[in-house]
Amino acid sequence: MAPQGQPEQVPDDGLTTRQRRDRPLLIVHTGTGKGKSTAAFGLALRGWAQGWPVGVFQFVKSAKWRIGEEKALRALADTGQGGTVTWHKMGSGWSWVQRRLELAEDPAGAAAEGWAQIARDLAAQTYQLYVLDELTYPLRWGWIDLDEVLAVLAARPGHQHVVITGRDAPAALLDAADLVTEMTKVKHPMDVGQKGQRGIEW
Amino acid sequence: MAPQGQPEQVPDDGLTTRQRRDRPLLIVHTGTGKGKSTAAFGLALRGWAQGWPVGVFQFVKSAKWRIGEEKALRALADTGQGGTVTWHKMGSGWSWVQRRLELAEDPAGAAAEGWAQIARDLAAQTYQLYVLDELTYPLRWGWIDLDEVLAVLAARPGHQHVVITGRDAPAALLDAADLVTEMTKVKHPMDVGQKGQRGIEW
Repeated sequence: MAPQGQPEQVPDDGLTTRQRRDRPLLIVHTGTGKGKSTAAFGLALRGWAQGWPVGVFQFVKSAKWRIGEEKALRALADTGQGGTVTWHKMGSGWSWVQRRLELAEDPAGAAAEGWAQIARDLAAQTYQLYVLDELTYPLRWGWIDLDEVLAVLAARPGHQHVVITGRDAPAALLDAADLVTEMTKVKHPMDVGQKGQRGIEW
Repeated sequence: MAPQGQPEQVPDDGLTTRQRRDRPLLIVHTGTGKGKSTAAFGLALRGWAQGWPVGVFQFVKSAKWRIGEEKALRALADTGQGGTVTWHKMGSGWSWVQRRLELAEDPAGAAAEGWAQIARDLAAQTYQLYVLDELTYPLRWGWIDLDEVLAVLAARPGHQHVVITGRDAPAALLDAADLVTEMTKVKHPMDVGQKGQRGIEW
């Protein structure tokens, strides 16, 4: 809870507290509730404030989707007061329209290409924080190979944090993660007939 | 899920879709998992991108707490490309130190004063989005009267969205909310002895 919180137990792994503290984290935000991506972009705020290079990889295409976050993070990067933010749109292959999945030509190819870019950036240590937004969907649909993703993440060099968002995160991804939060929908205005609105949904 | 999602049912309330769409929302992020506040600050990003005046009311004091978000939102506001962000520190009365609650002199008075400011701003329609960060704690501790909060929120004029974060949100607050997400901890590095680290926890 507190930033300076005491760990609940000290592991017998031969590492100092600082070495453990400085470990790169694999973070997953999953579940059917809201806030998965929003919280990931909140982490991007913190990363920017730390002066980190932040890479956002957006695995969905939509006219409205993430435009607020993209505008804000680009504006932040432009201030020069913190880190950099590089925004990659990897999801030209698919989008949500009226809650229905809409596929472009060769969506699997576009997703695989997106992942290949991430793998290259991880190998090159391009960023200190990676937001892989909605990556769970192409993983679930088999467009990106889960085993390869897990292998690349496990072998990533240096100190690179990775946040993956989306529903139905595969169990093996949760096993590999250091920090997993499930966002659960308790109540949502769409349940009582309200439609999404700007500033809240996008 | 999609920004343009179809409502699951249409209520018999005599309102047009646009009137329902434009309703001000009371949003609660609760639960023991991470991401409650982070997602609220992500909403602040969206609000800023919409050009809204955003008010943040921080109900906890800490040297590290929210400094990244504060730096980022202040920098965004300074760009002049979106809305404004006003950051209020209302929690001079308490803080978390090493996961223990640390109280200053008259914490209840400070919290009550903080709430009075919010009530004034709601009445004056000062902001379009209010982030009431960690408000659930002073509510739980009785420093701020829950019934008064509910009455003020229910009677707020105009089109003001309110996001309240914190563990153990009172049931009556959840009843009053339009959108509730529970963040559940599935796995956390502190469980295996890892301490919080910069860029992730603050």
